[in-house]
Amino acid sequence: MTRKELIEQIREKQSFLCVGLDTDLDKMPKGLKEIVKKEYEEEELTFGMLLEFNIRIIDATAPYCVAYKPNLAFYESLGSMGVAAYEETVDYLRENYPDHFIIADAKRGDIGNTSAMYARSFFEGETQVDALTVAPYMGEDSVTPFLGYQDKWVVLLALTSNKGSHDFQLTEDKEGERLFEKVLKVSQQWGNDENMMYVVGATQGRMFEDIRKIAPRHFLLVPGVGAQGGSLEEVCQYGMIPGDIGLLVNSSRGIIYASQGEDFAEVAGQKAHELQQQMAKIMKQ
Amino acid sequence: MTRKELIEQIREKQSFLCVGLDTDLDKMPKGLKEIVKKEYEEEELTFGMLLEFNIRIIDATAPYCVAYKPNLAFYESLGSMGVAAYEETVDYLRENYPDHFIIADAKRGDIGNTSAMYARSFFEGETQVDALTVAPYMGEDSVTPFLGYQDKWVVLLALTSNKGSHDFQLTEDKEGERLFEKVLKVSQQWGNDENMMYVVGATQGRMFEDIRKIAPRHFLLVPGVGAQGGSLEEVCQYGMIPGDIGLLVNSSRGIIYASQGEDFAEVAGQKAHELQQQMAKIMKQ
Repeated sequence: MTRKELIEQIREKQSFLCVGLDTDLDKMPKGLKEIVKKEYEEEELTFGMLLEFNIRIIDATAPYCVAYKPNLAFYESLGSMGVAAYEETVDYLRENYPDHFIIADAKRGDIGNTSAMYARSFFEGETQVDALTVAPYMGEDSVTPFLGYQDKWVVLLALTSNKGSHDFQLTEDKEGERLFEKVLKVSQQWGNDENMMYVVGATQGRMFEDIRKIAPRHFLLVPGVGAQGGSLEEVCQYGMIPGDIGLLVNSSRGIIYASQGEDFAEVAGQKAHELQQQMAKIMKQ
Repeated sequence: MTRKELIEQIREKQSFLCVGLDTDLDKMPKGLKEIVKKEYEEEELTFGMLLEFNIRIIDATAPYCVAYKPNLAFYESLGSMGVAAYEETVDYLRENYPDHFIIADAKRGDIGNTSAMYARSFFEGETQVDALTVAPYMGEDSVTPFLGYQDKWVVLLALTSNKGSHDFQLTEDKEGERLFEKVLKVSQQWGNDENMMYVVGATQGRMFEDIRKIAPRHFLLVPGVGAQGGSLEEVCQYGMIPGDIGLLVNSSRGIIYASQGEDFAEVAGQKAHELQQQMAKIMKQ
């Protein structure tokens, strides 16, 4: 998907919401297992649970969001069966919701030839996503292999939402430049605002002002609204690009585990709708 | 595996070699496919190729090395089938070579609750490895979830072997401390030399001196000997801990793709043996 197409989707839906598919067997409604048991064989139960949960969440939230972000950790923790459920989820999205942007949240990054293998995993073959989160620590040759694909995106970690972001990302160099600022600057020599976004945590508040000075036109993927305590209003006040929006605000737990009852999908839809309405209001201001 | 046990293995084998299982379908000997075709069904061919290649490499090299390091990128690039082959490879090692140290080279790292999911993937359940490579960019809570497991190790990226290591890892802060040095120092508040190692590229030469000033007793996982141009002698001269060795030197392509003929496993064994002999010589000095 191109930057232009993404912005069109945002305008059409009056939403820049990304739903995080951090699908966790331990947090699923109890009733789901009984339903899945009827449709899947015993050895495929894990696969069936993950997939059915995701499909129901997707069907309920799709009208209110423009993107989905499965986090690979949750699938990989269940082995190859979990990875198969991730693949099937992406295939389901592609087939049924082709206008939604799909971000594989995997935070990959390795030496050049190995990053090229990761790029294949996510950007080639049958199961393709639009974007992949990438860690910057290993520098240029760990990132550029992901940038050679038409209409595919790197979402580079810049200033993350967690407490540990203070350990290294805020370290100032001799000129007073912080590491995340250096990442923003240096990486702009590798990619541009048509193939690179940055992760900036919603918990970072006014730091969005500093980020917009360095990356005025790049889309930012913003986790941390909801469960992690970030404020949507603050993110928009300091991070939004007039006209182009330039934000994908992610909510995972706050949507998909809003209810652990039989009504989980319905409630997830409601939560997504609430966020969409807040976003529509902000977009109209 | 404990630090003590690892050192015992090194002394016994007179080797601190780690064989990197960067198993790539495109680089396999042509004859292998015909052999695999007889044993696996059509839809399991990819799985069979990866697994058979690994088993033959492992059987040929096991006497000369103390560790194996499958790089997940190569398995994930083939989807859930590739991940299944990775799992089966680890299971094969556990069953047949229980004294070998297994490092999953996956360079993971995410916010705390997500890193905890990755920790489950690698350190719990049926398929367990001894160690996992982790990227430090996201700081403390992205690393500590991996440290709560008995006899399991985090191998934290410090100073990598690739060209891109210069982009951020060498950035000096106001006191002249480089980022990789800060990573070495700060991370010692999270773990110790019994549950944490560091990745330091063989291509970094005399930098090992600086690293040993900060981390005198930690094991270092050293990629980059061979295909990437690093020197074993230099690594040992500046990085080895007298008595405890403190190094796991990895070679991947230089061993497993030394021959692409029918004799690939035999030649891999020879290459591993050559490196082991060099190591034994160094250990006797």
